[in-house]
Amino acid sequence: MAFSLVLSSPKPFYPSCNPNPNIPRSHILFNPWLSPPSSRFGLIPHLSCSSSVLLSKPWSRSGALRCSLRSRPEYIPNHIPDPCYVRVFDTTLRDGEQSPGATMTSKEKLVVARQLSLLGVDIIEAGFPASSPDDLDAVRSIAMEVGNQPVSEDGHIPVICGLARCNKKDIDAAWEAVRHAKKPRVHTFIATSEIHMQHKLRKTREEVVRIACEMVAYARSLGCQDIEFSPEDAGRSDRDFLYHVLEEVIKAGATTVNIPDTVGYTLPSEFEKLIADIKANTRGIEDVIISTHCQNDLGLATANTLAGAYAGARQVEVTVNGIGERAGNASLEEVVIALKCRQELMGGLYTGINTKHIVMASKMVAEYTGLHVQPHKAIVGANAFAHESGIHQDGMLKHKNTYEIISPEDIGLSRSNESGIVLGKLSGRHALRSKLLEFGYDINGKELEDVFKRFKEVAEKKKRISDEDIEALISDEIFQPAVIWSLGELQATCGTLGLSTATVKLVASDGEEKIACSVGTGPVDAAYKAIDSIVEVPATLREYAMTSVTEGIDAIATTRVVIGGDGSHMSTHALTGEPVHRTFSGSGAAMDIVVSSVRAYISALNKMLGFMSAVKATRENPQGKTSRSSE
Amino acid sequence: MAFSLVLSSPKPFYPSCNPNPNIPRSHILFNPWLSPPSSRFGLIPHLSCSSSVLLSKPWSRSGALRCSLRSRPEYIPNHIPDPCYVRVFDTTLRDGEQSPGATMTSKEKLVVARQLSLLGVDIIEAGFPASSPDDLDAVRSIAMEVGNQPVSEDGHIPVICGLARCNKKDIDAAWEAVRHAKKPRVHTFIATSEIHMQHKLRKTREEVVRIACEMVAYARSLGCQDIEFSPEDAGRSDRDFLYHVLEEVIKAGATTVNIPDTVGYTLPSEFEKLIADIKANTRGIEDVIISTHCQNDLGLATANTLAGAYAGARQVEVTVNGIGERAGNASLEEVVIALKCRQELMGGLYTGINTKHIVMASKMVAEYTGLHVQPHKAIVGANAFAHESGIHQDGMLKHKNTYEIISPEDIGLSRSNESGIVLGKLSGRHALRSKLLEFGYDINGKELEDVFKRFKEVAEKKKRISDEDIEALISDEIFQPAVIWSLGELQATCGTLGLSTATVKLVASDGEEKIACSVGTGPVDAAYKAIDSIVEVPATLREYAMTSVTEGIDAIATTRVVIGGDGSHMSTHALTGEPVHRTFSGSGAAMDIVVSSVRAYISALNKMLGFMSAVKATRENPQGKTSRSSE
Repeated sequence: MAFSLVLSSPKPFYPSCNPNPNIPRSHILFNPWLSPPSSRFGLIPHLSCSSSVLLSKPWSRSGALRCSLRSRPEYIPNHIPDPCYVRVFDTTLRDGEQSPGATMTSKEKLVVARQLSLLGVDIIEAGFPASSPDDLDAVRSIAMEVGNQPVSEDGHIPVICGLARCNKKDIDAAWEAVRHAKKPRVHTFIATSEIHMQHKLRKTREEVVRIACEMVAYARSLGCQDIEFSPEDAGRSDRDFLYHVLEEVIKAGATTVNIPDTVGYTLPSEFEKLIADIKANTRGIEDVIISTHCQNDLGLATANTLAGAYAGARQVEVTVNGIGERAGNASLEEVVIALKCRQELMGGLYTGINTKHIVMASKMVAEYTGLHVQPHKAIVGANAFAHESGIHQDGMLKHKNTYEIISPEDIGLSRSNESGIVLGKLSGRHALRSKLLEFGYDINGKELEDVFKRFKEVAEKKKRISDEDIEALISDEIFQPAVIWSLGELQATCGTLGLSTATVKLVASDGEEKIACSVGTGPVDAAYKAIDSIVEVPATLREYAMTSVTEGIDAIATTRVVIGGDGSHMSTHALTGEPVHRTFSGSGAAMDIVVSSVRAYISALNKMLGFMSAVKATRENPQGKTSRSSE
Repeated sequence: MAFSLVLSSPKPFYPSCNPNPNIPRSHILFNPWLSPPSSRFGLIPHLSCSSSVLLSKPWSRSGALRCSLRSRPEYIPNHIPDPCYVRVFDTTLRDGEQSPGATMTSKEKLVVARQLSLLGVDIIEAGFPASSPDDLDAVRSIAMEVGNQPVSEDGHIPVICGLARCNKKDIDAAWEAVRHAKKPRVHTFIATSEIHMQHKLRKTREEVVRIACEMVAYARSLGCQDIEFSPEDAGRSDRDFLYHVLEEVIKAGATTVNIPDTVGYTLPSEFEKLIADIKANTRGIEDVIISTHCQNDLGLATANTLAGAYAGARQVEVTVNGIGERAGNASLEEVVIALKCRQELMGGLYTGINTKHIVMASKMVAEYTGLHVQPHKAIVGANAFAHESGIHQDGMLKHKNTYEIISPEDIGLSRSNESGIVLGKLSGRHALRSKLLEFGYDINGKELEDVFKRFKEVAEKKKRISDEDIEALISDEIFQPAVIWSLGELQATCGTLGLSTATVKLVASDGEEKIACSVGTGPVDAAYKAIDSIVEVPATLREYAMTSVTEGIDAIATTRVVIGGDGSHMSTHALTGEPVHRTFSGSGAAMDIVVSSVRAYISALNKMLGFMSAVKATRENPQGKTSRSSE
């Protein structure tokens, strides 16, 4: 393929990623991942687009660079200078957070957003600002901080995106939330399938097109240069109407068009054909980015996303751990690692993700959302790298050229018992801090002091402190909401013989101590009832789970609970527009399972109380946002 | 396509499943799931193979039946009378069970095998008999019972399969274990990739072919008519050599050839092409069944399996919940439901699975293996059917013709609070039994009495007994190993203030009571130490997890633990041939979390003690198998 084609073609997007220039274009659209004729996969030079790609910056004298350098190209909303680069759009904080029980506080969302930035995500969909004042506030905080300050050495700053339905109120809220970011984006959507237009919207096709265009134009009129549009339920929309809608919103100023597989029932080649058809039949599509958004109802989200990218999508919408409503979304780690490991067969596609931060992102999201990951989850499951011994694994490592196999270190997984520093009873703050840095936690001051205190308590009781013990402790300390109540003391008696009884001393943030006791059906029931009698806010336990993070009976147990309040904590669901009852998760770690359970409950209560006071403050002072947002 | 083609073609396997007879065959091989040109998916009549398929029994007067009747065709090892029928080969008990901590006892394996038979699985791979005497015994029990007695009304009896490496000792053990079944199968394998042959086997290509053929012939000489052969690491094997090996083993008598994606790094179209290439280039392949076995390392196992079936594989190897080493295998429920929901786009393929038994199979396997399922797992995750309210879901249900959408009831999920019977304090045995029948548990006698006693204990403390409460209780009672020790009484004191102390009374199977007390870092640590001082068998806690199954503080908590012994409980790993340390899981349910934890530990200890005595008995009386196996 000629070098000049890349520069002068009227469709400059993906020409060099045609896996085999000898195959006519019409075939390519129907031939996903065309395999090479030889017997060895992944080693076929002609599959690589390396020889014909010009990156945005001419770093080599010849002016042409191999895309295997994997540099992130310059960000232009509607155009990617490198046709092999795939943007990663993470919607953990929006789509993921609306899963049952996955509510995160603004502070937690900010921490996750920082991690996503470190991970190298191109676009962070930070929330749905119109759903509640608290959501708007969370997105704005992320836009102000993560949208302006690079967290990694390469200076990368992600786009901050807010979701909005096709109405002015939603778009106003989204723009108000994201406009503080260096690269703000508004993402607006409207359903385009007959069934949704008739039953949900009660609008004609013409009305839907008009509304979509008006709202895209409205967002542009506010000053937003980066606008994503999604035709909801695209897979079931009339194809010609879908092309028409997309053409019109592109004319109106959309810079990315996202194609959701809303019901998650599409097969990979079917989704690939949908993307290819849109690319082939939509006027103006070459001036925007095509995006995928795949639900996982049949377990095919990762395959569908890859198929979409192969067909020409250059943005993939994913979540960490694949969380989301129902069976979730395509998982960031699976899509990114598959592209990385099978790059050559995928036509040389690559992302800007620094995979070493995957494990920490996975742990953080699991902690904050309470959505745990099964042991056999691909890439980030506890067993994912638990290879059997012997030649099987050994052989793979020795022959990396057969596949680009990933190792635990590639995704930031520290191998237990192999690290240099072993902590024990006599270890000091400095050793603890070094160990925490190994895990990626750079903490100081009071936070370090708190963790150190907890560490010493455990070290008193346990000879050997494992890496997992340390991680449990730091999770418990770091991933906590603002403290409103903290645990003073606890005492419990239980068993099969009599009535379980617990006595609890709680300390309020002003230092006041309160003590209560209660009986219950078990020690946790008794302790929670005692806490309820002190806190005096209605709370219902929705979920309760405990895991021991380390081996041995004297392990640290981590408890995770989800609680609901009295029903007043509402948010708006992005797709249905209906109210959603917020629930709140909390976690706690201790060697005593009753203490661990109580810490988790207090953590969840603190999260709920913090949320309630934030909502109250926003309601009482709705203009507070303006004073905060002035730069 | 002519009717006579099905009967007279020299390659009679899949002719009618060519999705579009106007497209030349060479295209089909490269065109997975070719989408219809119109905008509506899944409704294209020409994609169905219904008009040209002859089932084994002429149930209609014309002699030709629509395959949409989905009847299970007659079982012939090397041939399926209906070209659209896909056999489901479940390897939960073999590949799944060798996951870390997933060890099941023989009794548990038998219960799972019964459920797999009820589910309608075609082939149950029941174990790797050469790995240990206990494994052989478990496979034999399954062959004797599940391999002979139908459990559902349709009279279906599954094939019982045993795995064997390519040596006489393994094949002898496998045949000895499965030969009691009505339809016994031996599955033997050897690596065919250069890297495995050189480093693991240290054999030349010629030696590998010779060994494979000799061992297939040897299995036939023992009387086995149904032999599956797998070329391990097929994806990385030299293609021509792979065809050659397969041709030779087919000549030697193999009836199914299974193509494993051993490292789990293959992309769907790549795997599809592998299957299509084997189908096109292997002499004699039309006389056997092609099978897929896909690992899930990149999250693509389900997509790869579907791609393989589309390309011509008519057996899919899967596990319940997708368990297995590392990231597991293709999950039975995802593959089966995808085939069911998108049958027309998949060329009319169908399976014999009765999906109503999926949820129970999923719960059972999660309980017994200790490998839980994440909330957003497709099909069987807790959130998989937690649809948001409103038009979104409503619309889907109203328009089932758009996709063949599944409902919770389709997979046997009972909707909480919608059942007729509500249990309370005054409910009797009859009401409880009716409720249990709703869940699929048909129990009587002592088992019912034990559950009823537990039910009454809970009803005393809790006003409203939910369906989940009942399920937790029955899981705790039914999914238990043989009782060697049971819990008499327990008393514990704990908290942040002092030393946790527990007193435990255990009752031995002969009625003897023993009491011990201990201090510990928490109440569980203290109680487990007290138990250890009574049981006096070395045990190490490897994993500990607890979940509350119902909402509210007065919920029932289920604890799951995994313990390891002193290292003497060994088995042999199928692929590496190296020793595997057995670990044992146990679960317990109670409203008191300390009691729940103690019940789980005793359950795991009972499993380990039972395993130890079974191994001891087999070692002392190695001929015991012969006396048992005489029919």
